[in-house]
Amino acid sequence: FPLGNRMEKPRTSGLTMLIDKGLGLGEIRDLLNLAGDYIDFVKLGFGTSALYSNHVLEEKIHLVTSHGIDIYPGGTFLEVAILQDKLREYLAMARDFGFTAVEVSDGTIDLSLEARAEAINLAADMGFKVLSEVGKKDPNDEFEIKDIVQLVNQDLANGSSHVIVEGRESGKSVGLYDQHGNIIMSDLEELVYSLPNASSLIWEAPIKEQQQELIIRFGPNVNIGNVNPHEVLALESLRVGLRADTLKTVLPRK
Amino acid sequence: FPLGNRMEKPRTSGLTMLIDKGLGLGEIRDLLNLAGDYIDFVKLGFGTSALYSNHVLEEKIHLVTSHGIDIYPGGTFLEVAILQDKLREYLAMARDFGFTAVEVSDGTIDLSLEARAEAINLAADMGFKVLSEVGKKDPNDEFEIKDIVQLVNQDLANGSSHVIVEGRESGKSVGLYDQHGNIIMSDLEELVYSLPNASSLIWEAPIKEQQQELIIRFGPNVNIGNVNPHEVLALESLRVGLRADTLKTVLPRK
Amino acid sequence: FPLGNRMEKPRTSGLTMLIDKGLGLGEIRDLLNLAGDYIDFVKLGFGTSALYSNHVLEEKIHLVTSHGIDIYPGGTFLEVAILQDKLREYLAMARDFGFTAVEVSDGTIDLSLEARAEAINLAADMGFKVLSEVGKKDPNDEFEIKDIVQLVNQDLANGSSHVIVEGRESGKSVGLYDQHGNIIMSDLEELVYSLPNASSLIWEAPIKEQQQELIIRFGPNVNIGNVNPHEVLALESLRVGLRADTLKTVLPRK
Repeated sequence: FPLGNRMEKPRTSGLTMLIDKGLGLGEIRDLLNLAGDYIDFVKLGFGTSALYSNHVLEEKIHLVTSHGIDIYPGGTFLEVAILQDKLREYLAMARDFGFTAVEVSDGTIDLSLEARAEAINLAADMGFKVLSEVGKKDPNDEFEIKDIVQLVNQDLANGSSHVIVEGRESGKSVGLYDQHGNIIMSDLEELVYSLPNASSLIWEAPIKEQQQELIIRFGPNVNIGNVNPHEVLALESLRVGLRADTLKTVLPRK
Repeated sequence: FPLGNRMEKPRTSGLTMLIDKGLGLGEIRDLLNLAGDYIDFVKLGFGTSALYSNHVLEEKIHLVTSHGIDIYPGGTFLEVAILQDKLREYLAMARDFGFTAVEVSDGTIDLSLEARAEAINLAADMGFKVLSEVGKKDPNDEFEIKDIVQLVNQDLANGSSHVIVEGRESGKSVGLYDQHGNIIMSDLEELVYSLPNASSLIWEAPIKEQQQELIIRFGPNVNIGNVNPHEVLALESLRVGLRADTLKTVLPRK
Repeated sequence: FPLGNRMEKPRTSGLTMLIDKGLGLGEIRDLLNLAGDYIDFVKLGFGTSALYSNHVLEEKIHLVTSHGIDIYPGGTFLEVAILQDKLREYLAMARDFGFTAVEVSDGTIDLSLEARAEAINLAADMGFKVLSEVGKKDPNDEFEIKDIVQLVNQDLANGSSHVIVEGRESGKSVGLYDQHGNIIMSDLEELVYSLPNASSLIWEAPIKEQQQELIIRFGPNVNIGNVNPHEVLALESLRVGLRADTLKTVLPRK
């Protein structure tokens, strides 16, 4: 492969996190058969997991985990649980269903630093792989790099395995992305410069151009999230340099 | 669920109408298994139903109706039948295939009020659930609220069970939507204010932001159409408040 | 059908070429069952074919070809082979896997006229249906109509069965498309005017409006490529006039 050096599973970087907005059992089986080697996390987006029948949900979780892939319910669901003061019950239920990871986020609600630390701690203690998330969903909320840096460091110390940088499903007008979905590179560089290890971040980057920019900036083993199920192979092509946009970066100059 | 009060099937409001642009039998089976409870109508978009083999079409209709979901061919097809003066033959054929509903529209052709009334009457008499549609597909055609109001009232009197507000597959530059897909709220409010019962409308709203606006404006039981098959669960999440955008509307103010 | 005159398979014009960015075996089986009659070529986009397991790749190729459809790996892959001076090995491997066509392109690399002619010749000699491609992927590269014309004529003389006009997956800022995906009609007309036979071209046109424009300009039997798998029936509806946008072109004037 032109870009080489792509890590194999199980890997701690070069992670691909899929957003599942409602794949049927047949679709997910089909996808795992085709591209299971290129998927590390499956997120059941938004609160969709509450809308499944128990039977379908358990079967989906089983299919995913049997391919060595972590699966977790969308963060909004956990935020509702915190709002309703039912975090422990929520986590117990998630464990019973077979989820192997959870996302701790405050995209919609306000969460004190203490409550956040507690949620991460509790989930890690209960055996989950914890992905915490930084960045608000609302475009009117500020994205202050130094606050983000502090959160990332605190979260990792408290037990997060990775920290997700919010990009939403749309990839626009949120966090590091402007209204057109372009990466605000100065913010990205400031963030990366301030962190001991940028590979602990998972970048939610649903748009191809974002994925491409991140691969060009960080190499094939950057962690990318909110990937559309139908784009998993296309992303992997970008990673390994089999797609024009990244291939040209390794060509000898004319 | 945070927003509560979501009606269960069979329901007369809170309807979700799917646009099927060509799902395979495996896909539709998979989708119904996952999300059949959240779908009320399936429209075989445009004239696609004429492109199926008989065997596949009959099997798809059977699958959908056996989940308690109405299914109908796209309105363009009926417009062609009217053009060719073959409405009755068309309806008889649709009934033979097992379609349970039809759409009476004039998105492309011109249709006199009398011919429209006749088509609705005939279809209702033949046992179909009739969805009539208001609004032209062409962005150059006017969208006059008072004409729309008159049509809606006449259609319901003639036997339409619901009236669809045209939004096309794109949701842009048509009817209540501007070129960016934003709802023209003043038109919407004028329309709703002039009607005895806005819940007899099904809003074609293919874009997430449109769905969200409608749910915030009318509540979880608004009728939404032209929903992408892959977005059914995401829409249902919006309805019940499990997605950030509608969840925040029910949060206590900071 | 309103537009009539749609050619049946096997056909030499009115071709539909699908871009497959990673359909599972179940999905492709489902799609072929539904719409196999409306598909002439399947392209495994970018370098994705290198990411399949052998078993899945062989099964997919078998499924596609058994429906009388040609299948080929994306052109980027062949460009890598040329870069690595392994063209013959690449073609032999493609043949062993069962691919029936190949794409000869220089979307990313520079390719001399001689090397291009050689590649087309070699592939044709080895029994492949050869699709060559004109147009660079990079929006900064010039799209000179008279160079394109020369290439098209040379390619056809050397053994290409059709020549693809680059439109990329996005259909924007490339070749005949401006940044919004609108066709630059003056370029298109100049190109068509300069060629002995425009039906030897396959237009990559992933966006519905582009497909519609091409059908209105050239009729239902124009060759269209980079069609999304979920849009095959929608495109066929456009071709035969069962969709509002092309139906209105055959209506009597008001």
